[in-house]
Amino acid sequence: MDERLRKQLDFALEVDKEKNIFRQTHLSGHGRNENDAEHAWHMALMAYILKEYANEPVDIAKVMLMCMIHDVVEIDAGDTYAYDAEGIKTQKEREDKAKERIFSLLPDDQRAELIALFDEFEAYETPESKYAHAMDNLQPLLLNNSNGGSDWKEHGVTADQVYGRQSKTRLGSEKLYQEVTDKLIKEHMKKGNIKE
Amino acid sequence: MDERLRKQLDFALEVDKEKNIFRQTHLSGHGRNENDAEHAWHMALMAYILKEYANEPVDIAKVMLMCMIHDVVEIDAGDTYAYDAEGIKTQKEREDKAKERIFSLLPDDQRAELIALFDEFEAYETPESKYAHAMDNLQPLLLNNSNGGSDWKEHGVTADQVYGRQSKTRLGSEKLYQEVTDKLIKEHMKKGNIKE
Repeated sequence: MDERLRKQLDFALEVDKEKNIFRQTHLSGHGRNENDAEHAWHMALMAYILKEYANEPVDIAKVMLMCMIHDVVEIDAGDTYAYDAEGIKTQKEREDKAKERIFSLLPDDQRAELIALFDEFEAYETPESKYAHAMDNLQPLLLNNSNGGSDWKEHGVTADQVYGRQSKTRLGSEKLYQEVTDKLIKEHMKKGNIKE
Repeated sequence: MDERLRKQLDFALEVDKEKNIFRQTHLSGHGRNENDAEHAWHMALMAYILKEYANEPVDIAKVMLMCMIHDVVEIDAGDTYAYDAEGIKTQKEREDKAKERIFSLLPDDQRAELIALFDEFEAYETPESKYAHAMDNLQPLLLNNSNGGSDWKEHGVTADQVYGRQSKTRLGSEKLYQEVTDKLIKEHMKKGNIKE
């Protein structure tokens, strides 16, 4: 087998490990914790279904691919919970190392392409990145809402924390922020699932 | 919230259930059984990485979306193992019913769009469908190979059965069939993991 194909298959097998990286979010129906591969699939599919609500026109193939690879680094770096202040301090360093190792399994051109896409997601600047981030926020919000806000309750999360993260959804989709995110957060504050 | 958005969110929440539909394939490292959401994510990502090997030029966004939705029907119909002759007899009827129910959660235009895409995948006729099927075959083959062929051994699968399914990979990618699929099957026949 030629070297290029062998490298591509090595990468394909390596990313299988994302299925063992578990997040704080629980599946609907008060299910088990969700893993990164499931989360990536779910947000990529949601990105397609909800694309009419992106603030700016987006290249939806690019968004879907961005969603699919945005957590690959967690194979080495682990999942850092959105409201884990200590973990967040070392997150970038851990993830940069992981990014180099994992994408370098690919042939050079694909390594460069996927690192650029990963960095674009992280930079939060392009329409695609902002919309993909909106999905990264909205997907766990939907699951958590379906479970009566139990993930917030479990971690004693405050309104400031939730708004700190979730308010960025409006950068990708004002409509989804207004109609879904903000309404759900207010509802869960009222119910006491998110602390004021 | 307007009706259209509510329907889209209902669908987004419904597909979460794919994470509870388990397949016969095991994760690498002799891990647990894989579920449909993980499988869909993995094959969509592989489709992107390996797209240069498609027999014909493909619209890769369409292929990725096809991969992401091709098992949605299993939420109701369950997973039918590729070598379960009895299950295969009722598979189409079970999956048709599921297709109607699940995609009908969406607004009409999106229901029609995704059913058309699902049907296109099933029909095995377009370049996108053939290539997506090649991924549907190659992805579990890679995992099973990484585990020493244990999924084949567990089910006492024969070479005829494996070739019956896996030889269709060549319709989507002659190169991947020749360089990966056929070589791996022969290797596992030699080792006795696939019965002659």
